[in-house]
Amino acid sequence: MSQQIRKAEGKLGILTPGMGAVATTFMAGVIAINKGLAKPIGSVSQMGNIRLGKRTENRNPLIKDFVPLANLQDIVFGGWDLYEDNVYQAAMHAKVLDANMLFQIKAELEAIRPMKAVFDRTFVKNLDGTYIKTGTDKMDLAKQVMNDIENFKEANDLDRVVMVWCGSTEIYFEASEVHNTIEAFEQGLKDNDPNISPSMIYAYAAIKLGVPFANGAPNLTCDIPALVELSKQTSTPIAGKDFKTGQTLMKTILAPGLYARALGVSGWFSTNILGNRDGLVLDDPDNFKTKEVSKLGVLEDIFKPEDNPELYGDIYHKVRINYYPPHGDNKESWDNIDIFGWMGYQMQIKVNFLCRDSILAAPIVLDLALFIDLAKRADMSGIQEWLSFYLKSPQTAEGLRPEHDIFKQLIKMQNTLRHLMGEDLITHLGLDYYQELVDEIL
Amino acid sequence: MSQQIRKAEGKLGILTPGMGAVATTFMAGVIAINKGLAKPIGSVSQMGNIRLGKRTENRNPLIKDFVPLANLQDIVFGGWDLYEDNVYQAAMHAKVLDANMLFQIKAELEAIRPMKAVFDRTFVKNLDGTYIKTGTDKMDLAKQVMNDIENFKEANDLDRVVMVWCGSTEIYFEASEVHNTIEAFEQGLKDNDPNISPSMIYAYAAIKLGVPFANGAPNLTCDIPALVELSKQTSTPIAGKDFKTGQTLMKTILAPGLYARALGVSGWFSTNILGNRDGLVLDDPDNFKTKEVSKLGVLEDIFKPEDNPELYGDIYHKVRINYYPPHGDNKESWDNIDIFGWMGYQMQIKVNFLCRDSILAAPIVLDLALFIDLAKRADMSGIQEWLSFYLKSPQTAEGLRPEHDIFKQLIKMQNTLRHLMGEDLITHLGLDYYQELVDEIL
Amino acid sequence: MSQQIRKAEGKLGILTPGMGAVATTFMAGVIAINKGLAKPIGSVSQMGNIRLGKRTENRNPLIKDFVPLANLQDIVFGGWDLYEDNVYQAAMHAKVLDANMLFQIKAELEAIRPMKAVFDRTFVKNLDGTYIKTGTDKMDLAKQVMNDIENFKEANDLDRVVMVWCGSTEIYFEASEVHNTIEAFEQGLKDNDPNISPSMIYAYAAIKLGVPFANGAPNLTCDIPALVELSKQTSTPIAGKDFKTGQTLMKTILAPGLYARALGVSGWFSTNILGNRDGLVLDDPDNFKTKEVSKLGVLEDIFKPEDNPELYGDIYHKVRINYYPPHGDNKESWDNIDIFGWMGYQMQIKVNFLCRDSILAAPIVLDLALFIDLAKRADMSGIQEWLSFYLKSPQTAEGLRPEHDIFKQLIKMQNTLRHLMGEDLITHLGLDYYQELVDEIL
Amino acid sequence: MSQQIRKAEGKLGILTPGMGAVATTFMAGVIAINKGLAKPIGSVSQMGNIRLGKRTENRNPLIKDFVPLANLQDIVFGGWDLYEDNVYQAAMHAKVLDANMLFQIKAELEAIRPMKAVFDRTFVKNLDGTYIKTGTDKMDLAKQVMNDIENFKEANDLDRVVMVWCGSTEIYFEASEVHNTIEAFEQGLKDNDPNISPSMIYAYAAIKLGVPFANGAPNLTCDIPALVELSKQTSTPIAGKDFKTGQTLMKTILAPGLYARALGVSGWFSTNILGNRDGLVLDDPDNFKTKEVSKLGVLEDIFKPEDNPELYGDIYHKVRINYYPPHGDNKESWDNIDIFGWMGYQMQIKVNFLCRDSILAAPIVLDLALFIDLAKRADMSGIQEWLSFYLKSPQTAEGLRPEHDIFKQLIKMQNTLRHLMGEDLITHLGLDYYQELVDEIL
Repeated sequence: MSQQIRKAEGKLGILTPGMGAVATTFMAGVIAINKGLAKPIGSVSQMGNIRLGKRTENRNPLIKDFVPLANLQDIVFGGWDLYEDNVYQAAMHAKVLDANMLFQIKAELEAIRPMKAVFDRTFVKNLDGTYIKTGTDKMDLAKQVMNDIENFKEANDLDRVVMVWCGSTEIYFEASEVHNTIEAFEQGLKDNDPNISPSMIYAYAAIKLGVPFANGAPNLTCDIPALVELSKQTSTPIAGKDFKTGQTLMKTILAPGLYARALGVSGWFSTNILGNRDGLVLDDPDNFKTKEVSKLGVLEDIFKPEDNPELYGDIYHKVRINYYPPHGDNKESWDNIDIFGWMGYQMQIKVNFLCRDSILAAPIVLDLALFIDLAKRADMSGIQEWLSFYLKSPQTAEGLRPEHDIFKQLIKMQNTLRHLMGEDLITHLGLDYYQELVDEIL
Repeated sequence: MSQQIRKAEGKLGILTPGMGAVATTFMAGVIAINKGLAKPIGSVSQMGNIRLGKRTENRNPLIKDFVPLANLQDIVFGGWDLYEDNVYQAAMHAKVLDANMLFQIKAELEAIRPMKAVFDRTFVKNLDGTYIKTGTDKMDLAKQVMNDIENFKEANDLDRVVMVWCGSTEIYFEASEVHNTIEAFEQGLKDNDPNISPSMIYAYAAIKLGVPFANGAPNLTCDIPALVELSKQTSTPIAGKDFKTGQTLMKTILAPGLYARALGVSGWFSTNILGNRDGLVLDDPDNFKTKEVSKLGVLEDIFKPEDNPELYGDIYHKVRINYYPPHGDNKESWDNIDIFGWMGYQMQIKVNFLCRDSILAAPIVLDLALFIDLAKRADMSGIQEWLSFYLKSPQTAEGLRPEHDIFKQLIKMQNTLRHLMGEDLITHLGLDYYQELVDEIL
Repeated sequence: MSQQIRKAEGKLGILTPGMGAVATTFMAGVIAINKGLAKPIGSVSQMGNIRLGKRTENRNPLIKDFVPLANLQDIVFGGWDLYEDNVYQAAMHAKVLDANMLFQIKAELEAIRPMKAVFDRTFVKNLDGTYIKTGTDKMDLAKQVMNDIENFKEANDLDRVVMVWCGSTEIYFEASEVHNTIEAFEQGLKDNDPNISPSMIYAYAAIKLGVPFANGAPNLTCDIPALVELSKQTSTPIAGKDFKTGQTLMKTILAPGLYARALGVSGWFSTNILGNRDGLVLDDPDNFKTKEVSKLGVLEDIFKPEDNPELYGDIYHKVRINYYPPHGDNKESWDNIDIFGWMGYQMQIKVNFLCRDSILAAPIVLDLALFIDLAKRADMSGIQEWLSFYLKSPQTAEGLRPEHDIFKQLIKMQNTLRHLMGEDLITHLGLDYYQELVDEIL
Repeated sequence: MSQQIRKAEGKLGILTPGMGAVATTFMAGVIAINKGLAKPIGSVSQMGNIRLGKRTENRNPLIKDFVPLANLQDIVFGGWDLYEDNVYQAAMHAKVLDANMLFQIKAELEAIRPMKAVFDRTFVKNLDGTYIKTGTDKMDLAKQVMNDIENFKEANDLDRVVMVWCGSTEIYFEASEVHNTIEAFEQGLKDNDPNISPSMIYAYAAIKLGVPFANGAPNLTCDIPALVELSKQTSTPIAGKDFKTGQTLMKTILAPGLYARALGVSGWFSTNILGNRDGLVLDDPDNFKTKEVSKLGVLEDIFKPEDNPELYGDIYHKVRINYYPPHGDNKESWDNIDIFGWMGYQMQIKVNFLCRDSILAAPIVLDLALFIDLAKRADMSGIQEWLSFYLKSPQTAEGLRPEHDIFKQLIKMQNTLRHLMGEDLITHLGLDYYQELVDEIL
């Protein structure tokens, strides 16, 4: 199949609706990396290895040396924001990266200026933007975004563009009729339907133009039937949703471990403290609800209580997020996990993760952008479930249960890459290493 | 291949050298489970599911309903110990299980009495046994153990016997000439070679008789060329070593998660407090050394620093065990993990595991016994690497790097079971769920 | 002054409005202690020492041997509750104490039966009692309570009675006109004023009869001018409010330590998980508000930001309580404290307290009951600030700042006892131990 | 008494044997503070308040405004070290303070150069200095140090000099005959007695000259009869030993809190990870022994097991220090405290302190220097027990039990200052605020 992948030639534009802490950390990082000032730690596409063939072959190349990804030097950045700050100003304000580091790439960062955002305060009550598009209706706004994309592509002489939502979490609501078909959705855009959120307008604009789209927040954005259908029509890969960082990352690491050992779980209490803009937005209960739903689903899938009612049929799972300014972007989580083992005896696990939200999210933006661009060049359209490795609430084909176990997600992603490149899939069977069984194995 | 597995008919004897906290918790548990007083939580063979076929088939049976394992009702217990206490007395002394529970199965536990142990204080300085075999030389002791096994089998009318080492950690030493060939080893037994430890005497006795042997401690026991060779000659499955419980269990869950995301690690400090007999033995530096070697190797394999020097080339890994009587068997671990992400920014993870050593180990004894009995019936002899899921220092074919990642170990075990039963191996690729790629997939 | 204290002769009745986890743990404990089955650990009156005289005198008697307290054998229990369960049933339901222990004192506990409670669901939304007094108005209810007290005293042939509020936290509201004078309050009782809560009715009944009253919850109860005035009229000692257990106990231990060393504090995040009835009540925001106000005031007083703006002028203090059934009464707290030291460098302290709510509260009930009875016998009426050692929100004379530092509270209590018994107050000066200054010191 | 204190006129020299992380952080800090670049957070003498008079008087001045301390602008720094690095180089190497900050005071720091140290590797095995005095015998070395002091005083036109030991922990040994009298000690110096350590040579030199001396390490230094006697002869105040920072600081805060509430303690496990030079020195068991003795004594004194055998008679107390380079000077401690309450029920407290060793120690150096200089001017000679607030192993008059409770130490220090300045001592009695007792109180 590898012959069919078009090469990554020319420049790749990465557009982010939302140019706050995550997006600016991502952009500043790539620029610093290109100048040799930093390393892309945490980016699986850049630093991760992939085992090929048998264990004894010792083939373990970097992923970027195995599949044809865009080169970091060929990336051009752009985006939209509610505030007019350029990326240098926004990054200084976010206080994620050292001022010293930012100073060394000040010119490059200052050159990246946001376009005016599509914004509707109904969906994000705790923010109040000042740099906002106006339009006759939501369809008009969508067309403005499409114009932005095309101008950006032309102005920068780009070969390809992808879009990754890095904006805030919108309030919780569920899909309704207007989201069901392309027709209903486009009519809704014209009618200013209140159930169409800003993030959907961006997603529509991207997918309509065949621009790959990934959603880093827990909003209902491209996971509605109308946009899935559109993505197939326009041969556009899409992926979502909600960058898997921090506490949920830990959860999808630990829970599979407990499940693997058939240890029971009676309770899981998760609390977070964070002081960045994300924390401020999530201090509103309606926005938190969206996040909570995204975070709570994780355990349900991994533990499959219906298959294991004695072990997982009665888990009390609670997730809290607390706005706590003293920590800024240094999100910190504390988990208490009540487990039980042999004969029902109880044990406890406490995990305290002193993390940095944007530092964990930035390489995900990079990887999603590079892999979804690869998918486009490999003619893979519609939902890219193999990217669920990066996402808290993976979007799947209708009726298909999402896989949250990060290790199954990893194998899925790696075997997808092996498959794309014509390599054997890996099963970890390995009985062939043991003489006496050699004959029975292929 | 499933046709070739002999059925699990008749009674299965499980013999444990060492009848302390772990073995008595295991035995009491199985008896209580058989009387309906408890559940075998933590036993993957009894409570774990295995997915078969495609995700949409929803086939997820319990492992015990999928592969032909011995029934818990058919198990008979026996063993050796340095103290003459019966299992009721030993379990009361170990203070792992509630006195109320033990009281309900007192009769059954009192009926299990240890045989005299092979013991040599050179190898375990902090213990001083009183119920010990004497013999003219180590070969004589081995023969006494073989007699014990055969008498036990006959007296209890058993169909099959397996042995699982549940004794203390012996002092650290490395394999030498006497361990290289069967001949040298048997000569060494006759010559009372000081490099042959008690655990080796048990292993030799078992393997010589074709009795499957698993090693739950970090000692050099059956992982010496002489005994591997013997296991092939006598068609005996063997597995080792060191039950993977507590802190190392957590480590092999967490480390693969960090590795999966290409997050760098600069330091990992692990400390333990425990107050049981195991803690007392490990308070001696020579015995701790054996444990430390077993515990330290874990990260090296998972992170593969030679492939990822920028991420894992400079990890400071330190493991400490502290004897702390107030906690008894309630071993508690605390880990500090220093990681770094995007652009090198540092983060920290702290894990505090309030665990119970024997509660985590007991179901491992059960699973190893049942699976190694299965292996025997399936004519799988020699090292059973697929059981490394349960072990801190998996024994592998010579020259083959052990796999410590618990999720790869799990897939290896599950795919081995699928393979034995003639089911498709699972790769988690799943592209076939997405229409547009259906044609390209087998 | 010690001559003036009347002896503790005859029996002492302790009445608790609220006979849930705290009250039953207290009663069961005293009974078990009297039968030699347990020790009154955590009770300063029973197990605490008090230093007398100079360090070199080595006089350090138990407090109960120093001041004339009621003997535990002379205590008789009674109370009111919304549920008809006797104390054995209520204690079994609370799951604080081992069933084995409760079984040994079953007869004594069953004999203690609640009287019907004064209850108004407006004040505690998450409970729905079934064993409730009815009356024509609140004054009528108060008189019923007074009758209960007098009947209880007579029926049990008691010398003295005290009352300690062990009921739930009522919703938050502030003192208003009806609470200002005895007249207004008594008129309010007759008029069914909605600002008079059940706890105030109990407090009024007690104080009116000269029965000492202590308040273990954060409600506005006896800390209103009307009842303070009444307590002086009737020569009744009163104390409040909110038993200082768990997280706030730790806070008033740690904060004085940071303050002592002039370490700055920028943030203090406190979260709790608990699954008892208290947790259920506090899951309602209005009831939590009462608790939150009580918990938040603590740091303000200890750090005195107005005196130390550079160190404590900008503390972000947040307290959360989460209902988490898996832990039952085993309340667990987690604190993150952000501090800064020399030149402003930041440090962090994390405290994880695996506590047991009722186990910490029960000895406080005992001590407050014994000490407030002592106060009565010593003719100390009105607010007993020296008991603030036990209380989260100490009630003080109007205009007087409460002291939250537990060590100053301890010295206050100890020096009060020394003063009552005619011993020298202790200043820890101690210069006289050093020869060269001897002359200057008294 | 305040009239008798000589004013702090002219310049004060502060000499530190040892110019590593602690001393350079202290010096850099004072210089930065004097330039307005930082604040002396953590210095009680500079930032701490002291309450005077009654609570209602609201008199709460800063200590530096209450007692006549040397002004920070009048301090001149000097010292000795095994390495020739100037203070700028040493501070850069210690990596405690930001390079940016150090750069702003580079000139001042470069001007401070160590004098050659008295060093003997027998006492500190893991260090190997290169900048070392040679002498005919230990008396000769002592005289060289005295010359250094006098030259330093003259060269800098100083009014007064104090010395604070900031060097490494020496190996453990106990006082013997040579330490018993001035005569024996001076003869030992001449005879190169192996029981006289380098730190004793510095202390002797200082005390002989009447220069106040404080000991920041746990070594036997000035707490030997010979030097106590000498300090009285020469009217020199002395204090020791071992700066109370980090884990022990927390311990002397928490333990008094548990004791205050009569909560029992069954175990206290304390572990540390640190990666600075101090950690390296303490990696040697002989040096760790000195530290361990200093750290272990703390609980014994606070809990007084002989007075409270039921609560504190069986505490298992263990302290571990682990060299862990990834954390550098950011010492981190983890404590597990097993407590028990009402009826013996068990609870646990875990404290994780992410501290910075030198940041906590630096203000202690400052305070000890300023207060011991005050003591000298107030004619207080010999042991200054009132400074035990700052010290892990307070030196006391012979036969007098040291006080470890930090709150009693604080009151002792504050009442000493009140006493020196002629203010009333504070007892926290406060009964006079309550009308009805007013008459009985003075």
